[in-house]
Amino acid sequence: MIIVMKPRAAKQSIRAVTRYIEDHGLQVHLSQGEEVTIIGIVGDKSKISTENLTIFKDVDHILPVTESYKLANKKFHPDPTTVKVGNTSIGPGNLTIMAGPCAVETQDQLFTIARAVKEAGATILRGGAYKPRTSPYSFQGLEEEGLKYMQEAKAETGLSTICEVVSLDAIEAAVKYVDMIQIGARNMQNFILLKEAGQSGLPVLLKRGLCATIDEWLNAAEYIIAEGNPNVVLCERGIRTFETATRNTLDLSAVPVLQERTHLPVIVDPSHSTGSYKYVAPMAKAAVACNADGLMIEVHNDPAHALSDGPQSLTFDRFAALTSELSPYCQLVNRKL
Amino acid sequence: MIIVMKPRAAKQSIRAVTRYIEDHGLQVHLSQGEEVTIIGIVGDKSKISTENLTIFKDVDHILPVTESYKLANKKFHPDPTTVKVGNTSIGPGNLTIMAGPCAVETQDQLFTIARAVKEAGATILRGGAYKPRTSPYSFQGLEEEGLKYMQEAKAETGLSTICEVVSLDAIEAAVKYVDMIQIGARNMQNFILLKEAGQSGLPVLLKRGLCATIDEWLNAAEYIIAEGNPNVVLCERGIRTFETATRNTLDLSAVPVLQERTHLPVIVDPSHSTGSYKYVAPMAKAAVACNADGLMIEVHNDPAHALSDGPQSLTFDRFAALTSELSPYCQLVNRKL
Amino acid sequence: MIIVMKPRAAKQSIRAVTRYIEDHGLQVHLSQGEEVTIIGIVGDKSKISTENLTIFKDVDHILPVTESYKLANKKFHPDPTTVKVGNTSIGPGNLTIMAGPCAVETQDQLFTIARAVKEAGATILRGGAYKPRTSPYSFQGLEEEGLKYMQEAKAETGLSTICEVVSLDAIEAAVKYVDMIQIGARNMQNFILLKEAGQSGLPVLLKRGLCATIDEWLNAAEYIIAEGNPNVVLCERGIRTFETATRNTLDLSAVPVLQERTHLPVIVDPSHSTGSYKYVAPMAKAAVACNADGLMIEVHNDPAHALSDGPQSLTFDRFAALTSELSPYCQLVNRKL
Amino acid sequence: MIIVMKPRAAKQSIRAVTRYIEDHGLQVHLSQGEEVTIIGIVGDKSKISTENLTIFKDVDHILPVTESYKLANKKFHPDPTTVKVGNTSIGPGNLTIMAGPCAVETQDQLFTIARAVKEAGATILRGGAYKPRTSPYSFQGLEEEGLKYMQEAKAETGLSTICEVVSLDAIEAAVKYVDMIQIGARNMQNFILLKEAGQSGLPVLLKRGLCATIDEWLNAAEYIIAEGNPNVVLCERGIRTFETATRNTLDLSAVPVLQERTHLPVIVDPSHSTGSYKYVAPMAKAAVACNADGLMIEVHNDPAHALSDGPQSLTFDRFAALTSELSPYCQLVNRKL
Repeated sequence: MIIVMKPRAAKQSIRAVTRYIEDHGLQVHLSQGEEVTIIGIVGDKSKISTENLTIFKDVDHILPVTESYKLANKKFHPDPTTVKVGNTSIGPGNLTIMAGPCAVETQDQLFTIARAVKEAGATILRGGAYKPRTSPYSFQGLEEEGLKYMQEAKAETGLSTICEVVSLDAIEAAVKYVDMIQIGARNMQNFILLKEAGQSGLPVLLKRGLCATIDEWLNAAEYIIAEGNPNVVLCERGIRTFETATRNTLDLSAVPVLQERTHLPVIVDPSHSTGSYKYVAPMAKAAVACNADGLMIEVHNDPAHALSDGPQSLTFDRFAALTSELSPYCQLVNRKL
Repeated sequence: MIIVMKPRAAKQSIRAVTRYIEDHGLQVHLSQGEEVTIIGIVGDKSKISTENLTIFKDVDHILPVTESYKLANKKFHPDPTTVKVGNTSIGPGNLTIMAGPCAVETQDQLFTIARAVKEAGATILRGGAYKPRTSPYSFQGLEEEGLKYMQEAKAETGLSTICEVVSLDAIEAAVKYVDMIQIGARNMQNFILLKEAGQSGLPVLLKRGLCATIDEWLNAAEYIIAEGNPNVVLCERGIRTFETATRNTLDLSAVPVLQERTHLPVIVDPSHSTGSYKYVAPMAKAAVACNADGLMIEVHNDPAHALSDGPQSLTFDRFAALTSELSPYCQLVNRKL
Repeated sequence: MIIVMKPRAAKQSIRAVTRYIEDHGLQVHLSQGEEVTIIGIVGDKSKISTENLTIFKDVDHILPVTESYKLANKKFHPDPTTVKVGNTSIGPGNLTIMAGPCAVETQDQLFTIARAVKEAGATILRGGAYKPRTSPYSFQGLEEEGLKYMQEAKAETGLSTICEVVSLDAIEAAVKYVDMIQIGARNMQNFILLKEAGQSGLPVLLKRGLCATIDEWLNAAEYIIAEGNPNVVLCERGIRTFETATRNTLDLSAVPVLQERTHLPVIVDPSHSTGSYKYVAPMAKAAVACNADGLMIEVHNDPAHALSDGPQSLTFDRFAALTSELSPYCQLVNRKL
Repeated sequence: MIIVMKPRAAKQSIRAVTRYIEDHGLQVHLSQGEEVTIIGIVGDKSKISTENLTIFKDVDHILPVTESYKLANKKFHPDPTTVKVGNTSIGPGNLTIMAGPCAVETQDQLFTIARAVKEAGATILRGGAYKPRTSPYSFQGLEEEGLKYMQEAKAETGLSTICEVVSLDAIEAAVKYVDMIQIGARNMQNFILLKEAGQSGLPVLLKRGLCATIDEWLNAAEYIIAEGNPNVVLCERGIRTFETATRNTLDLSAVPVLQERTHLPVIVDPSHSTGSYKYVAPMAKAAVACNADGLMIEVHNDPAHALSDGPQSLTFDRFAALTSELSPYCQLVNRKL
């Protein structure tokens, strides 16, 4: 943490800052420039609310030097993490495809889709049982019944399973039925839920919040890992910008940025980010090409009658065509599909 | 809902769309333009996933005609709502000031602040007992103990009280101790929490999400009201934009926009939005001038040692000066401070 | 400029950085922290492309310490600037209202509007002769003919005049006919135009770019001042965000932020930012309340038939009502209307 | 254009709207729904400022039905356009690489770089002679001298050439020396410059503005084509969002969106968008994978001493490695490198 003083800051202003720092058991490193004086803080910054220093007299602004997340930080854990999910794993060497309907609607529907996505190469079945919807009048999910169908679909197909959770109740139910839980974009900073997910023991897929910076996202992952659960996978799913041609703006650059900053695996969701089945295939290929560890793709047996997110769901044919086209891209990045 | 077909759409494409609509028990209104055919849907749109129509052949795009929120919609409830909170009320004719520390730290601190903000004109005491923080290593709040201090501060000063809730547990505790609960920006689309807040029976202050559109915000209010709780107050607290000179960008235009679209009261938080005590006074005055129903302002006895949000907290002197300066602005908008 | 090295940066990496800095005639200030080494640069940073240092081995990131704009910077020019425009002036003690049609359409229209806005209290007549329009098929302005009408309207009413310029030709014409030129939002980083505006000798109203940070905006002002023209007025007119309920998001917090960073006057345009006449009055009052030096407001004799921006134009009645309501707000901020 | 009336709109309000439309020689199509009345406009909408209708009594809002750009619109020109640039061409079947320094610094530097990028597979040499820089104190380019070096580099290597233009003077000079001109992001809505570029006769690379929607971008292209110049290539180069980990956010989804809406070629600039050489290779591969027609990449012989944009420039080795790695990706999308 560096404190930049105003030009011609009074000596007693500088002394007030240094005293505040030293009173908290930290050391000060003073640097007198031509225009401005800079004060560095040496020691354990968690002892001090450094942001408060902005209100000291003659302080111009404060610059952070190190990241607040530690457990998720590649600087301290240089080797990439592989996360096991049921009988598959996400990390270097693999291109993991999670596929399935946005919402679990009926047992029949789920089984039909599960078989189709498995045949096309998916290894994890996705299906929403608790649906966070913008309007209270939209379909809200089958809840625990949906989770049971997921468990049965796993028994039937051998696919591992993932389901979004939105509350402690949902986590407790999910632990009984599925292999991985997902924290959705709208709950990325629901810190209570993050802690509970950390305590669940299940691997966690953490979607990026619609307006979350990469730094905030990694701090959210830190909440989970700090509860003793290192099995966190990040999922880029688009951020909110002024552009409305796509539902959100897929920030694919986040993939290499994250791979520089964290050891956690990163997957990409081209369905929710674009909001249209037409853009799923090109963005899925782009995600593999820039070295994502996996994809989450919505697939539906009858998109026109889907209860949720029909417009962005792939039909079985389109999904099978896509996985087959992805195959040579996986070879280029040394990943197994 | 209007479906715009592509230029030269095939007749059978148009028929497929109209059949889908009619199969759901709705009526179709066809309009043949020079370039394009437009299909209007007449009837109860909740029967149909209209978004799915985007994937029909020759459909160009879909345009919504009516809002999805009804109970919060001024079109159907033209008179402004007044929300009672303890022995004060928020709505036309009043300028309600909620003030207090970001986080409740000690009983002593809270009492000192409560007395000071009351004397300066606040009628509701704010104080956080459950703090959602970006980093897991920051102070997370006193939880139920903090709520008890709030209750005691109310007994001591007669102020009404408000506290943020972040979970069902927190709501259950809050019901016992405070007069109003707050859903914070990060939980604005935590739909489980919204429903529980709706069932709590307490009036709810619903902060705008950092990247929530006004439409999504009103849909979130709809979740609460749909549980039978009409006592919702909206709080504009800044949205996330590219500008970093302030913590967020205070969207004051949201005040007149909301007053055109909803009957719910709207207050403004100039502390969290700007992130700096220096900008609180001008933005508070601006909020009153554009006809907000109230203000939420952070006040601390010793901002330099605050455990949370010190930089944006007003000292007692600054807060008292502000409320005194606000007085003539309130007269201009016919509100009582 | 501060260079933050990676944890455990090699000594030769640190030496490479310090040598690069010293080779450019600058001095180095080294600070060894517990986790990281920090390198400060002392001296005239304009001698060096410091951003290049990010590519040196073991450099983690670079932090700017001082602003790149000097002439516009309040740190070096603490007293507020007053800008003279014809026979009026913009700055402390005044609340300057610029009003008029978005586009000059006919001589008659302009005269009618000029008389009306003068009577209601405006001192500067605005009117566009060169219209930058999103679509090439929209009305593009009367060009020099429009400027002549502006000159005649000034002769007729005594109002000072302002007109947007979009090219060197337009500046050369404007110099002959009007008192102040305006650089529009879309040209805020048209650096050629900024330089030419600087050389014109006329005072310049510099609108904020739709996605310009305050820092970039002040750098754009610096371009004008650096040509020897200190008469720059800044105009906040809304920034582009995800919110679509208003045309843009009026960033009123920019007013106090600017007043802290620069000595230049700041005015607010509630017409273009909101895009709707309904929101002009509340946002105009809010702008005065947070201490803006003036307002730019679109007024039209017949908004329903305006060739440009009809929806946001005030009728004469609405404009007169607004200026009369603004009067007591001006008193509260010690400004003369 | 569709006008949505308020619920229970008065008959005379509806009549006022229909009369306004009919008075402009257009026809009205009325549709009475259960809740609202909808008025469609049939005929040539350019005759009427439909936006003005928002101010009519009882009008709720207006919905656009068709795009305002025609010449750039795929609906009316379904076949993809190929743009010839010197002796190469951009369009289907090709993956065109434009490479070179951000700024032309010396003849020597340019020749060295030109030879290196040609050997690695680039077919167009980029080099800035007019540099739009945020600060007036940064290097502003060699201007016409730089263009001459570009011409000489072309003679020496056989590469085609492209240079950014920022003014009419620059266009007039560019016509003499280079094969293609570029309109930069900051000038995307400098409509005067767009028209002049349209009249130049040279093919034009139109970069997306930092906060331009795809719709505005295509309208900007329309300005150029409307001057009789159909040779426009679009370049996605990142948009401004809240995320600061990269300089801008590369919106790769824009590639398939554009390919659905326009017949113009689309290339991607992974250098300016990310702002860091480390992210150029993954994003270049992603761009090819999602079917871009080309890439614009900054290459420098000595990035540490580059006068502009050093941090994002590739060294010769990195650039050669990248083009060689891109080769199999090009095969997968059926394009020749």
